Amino acid sequence: MILLSVGSSSSSQIAAIFSVTLLLFYFSEATLGSPCPINGLPIVRNISELPQDSYGIPGLTHMTVAGSVLHGMKEVEIWLQTFAPGAATPIHRHSCEEVFVVLMGSGTLYLAETHGSFPGKPVEFPIFANSTLHVPINDAHQVKNTGNEDLQVLVTISRPPIKIFTYDDWFMPHTAAKLKFPFVWDEQCFQESQKDEL
Amino acid sequence: MILLSVGSSSSSQIAAIFSVTLLLFYFSEATLGSPCPINGLPIVRNISELPQDSYGIPGLTHMTVAGSVLHGMKEVEIWLQTFAPGAATPIHRHSCEEVFVVLMGSGTLYLAETHGSFPGKPVEFPIFANSTLHVPINDAHQVKNTGNEDLQVLVTISRPPIKIFTYDDWFMPHTAAKLKFPFVWDEQCFQESQKDEL
Repeated sequence: MILLSVGSSSSSQIAAIFSVTLLLFYFSEATLGSPCPINGLPIVRNISELPQDSYGIPGLTHMTVAGSVLHGMKEVEIWLQTFAPGAATPIHRHSCEEVFVVLMGSGTLYLAETHGSFPGKPVEFPIFANSTLHVPINDAHQVKNTGNEDLQVLVTISRPPIKIFTYDDWFMPHTAAKLKFPFVWDEQCFQESQKDEL
Repeated sequence: MILLSVGSSSSSQIAAIFSVTLLLFYFSEATLGSPCPINGLPIVRNISELPQDSYGIPGLTHMTVAGSVLHGMKEVEIWLQTFAPGAATPIHRHSCEEVFVVLMGSGTLYLAETHGSFPGKPVEFPIFANSTLHVPINDAHQVKNTGNEDLQVLVTISRPPIKIFTYDDWFMPHTAAKLKFPFVWDEQCFQESQKDEL
C-alpha cells in the first residue's frame, strides 16, 4: 500500500502495481509457496498446501509437516509419509526417538533388537491403521508397506534435523553403515540455511 | 511354562495353573490393560485399546499415545485429544515445543504474542481439519473448540513430562501463573513411578 502512494502518472502506477505484485509474490514465496519457508512462517498452515516429494525413494511420498531446517523447530519434527504397496524405508538407524501413528493401511516394522556388531535378522511387527509404534534409539529398522493399499503414517522424531545411517542389508556391520546428512528431504533447505549464515 | 513342570499331583497342577493365570494377568496388566504400562510395553500398540479420560477438564477426551511417565519416552510425547464444542484448554504456557495436527473439526488458537509482564489480549488463529500449528516456547495460549462438531487433534510436545503454568485470565501476571506438575494425565503414573524408585 505504501508503494501505491509514490506517484499518480500512468507509468508510476504501473510501476507501483508491478512492485506490489512482486512484494505479494515475495511474501507468498517466503511462506508456504517456498520449499524453504523458515522466514515469515505462519502459525497455522494448511497441510494440503505443503510441498511433498518422493525425494528419490521409490513409492514414498514425504511431507515435512513441522521441521527443523524448513520451519525452525528445535526439538521435534513431524512428517506425513505415504508408502505405496511394496515401498519401504532403507534399513537404517538414528540416535533419536521416533514414534509412528498409522493413519491408514498396513505394513511391517522390521526391527533388529540384538546388539552385536551388525543388526542381524530382524523381528517382524505387523502395523495397522490406528496403531502406534516407537523405535528404540539406535536400533536398526525398516518400515515397509506389505499390504495392498497405501500405508500412511504420521512420524515424530526428536533431535532434528535427522541424521540417518543406512545399511545395505541386515548383516552389514554397524561401523560400515553410511551416514546420510542432511537427509534427502532436508538437503535443499539445509544448503540454503547454510548460505544464509555466511 | 516353567511353572507347569514343578509337579504332577492334582494339587500341584491346580497351583501351577493358578500361577500361570496370575502370571498372564500380571503381563496383561503390565502392558496395555494397566494405566501405567511402562514395563513390558509392546513396540506396536492399538490406539483403540489405550486408556482415555477427561481428567477433570470438561468436554475433553485425552489419550497419551506415547508418553514419558506412561511409556518411558525421553524426548517426545504424543497425545490424541478430542474437544467437544465449547471445550477448551486452560490459558497456559510451557517451556517446550508443541505442534498440533488437526485431524477433524475446527476451532481457535488464542495466542498471546506480546512479551510484557502478563499475556495480554491474545491474537486469534482459526484452526481447521488438515491444518498444523506450532506454539512458540513459553507463549501463553489456549485452544478452544469454537465450531459445532468435535475437534480432534494429535499433539506432539518436547521435553516430557509436561510442566504447565496456568492463568486465570489473559491479564494475570506471568509470575502469578500456577505450576501444575505433574499435569492431570500424568498424576497417577508419576506417583507410581516415584514409588518404584524407593
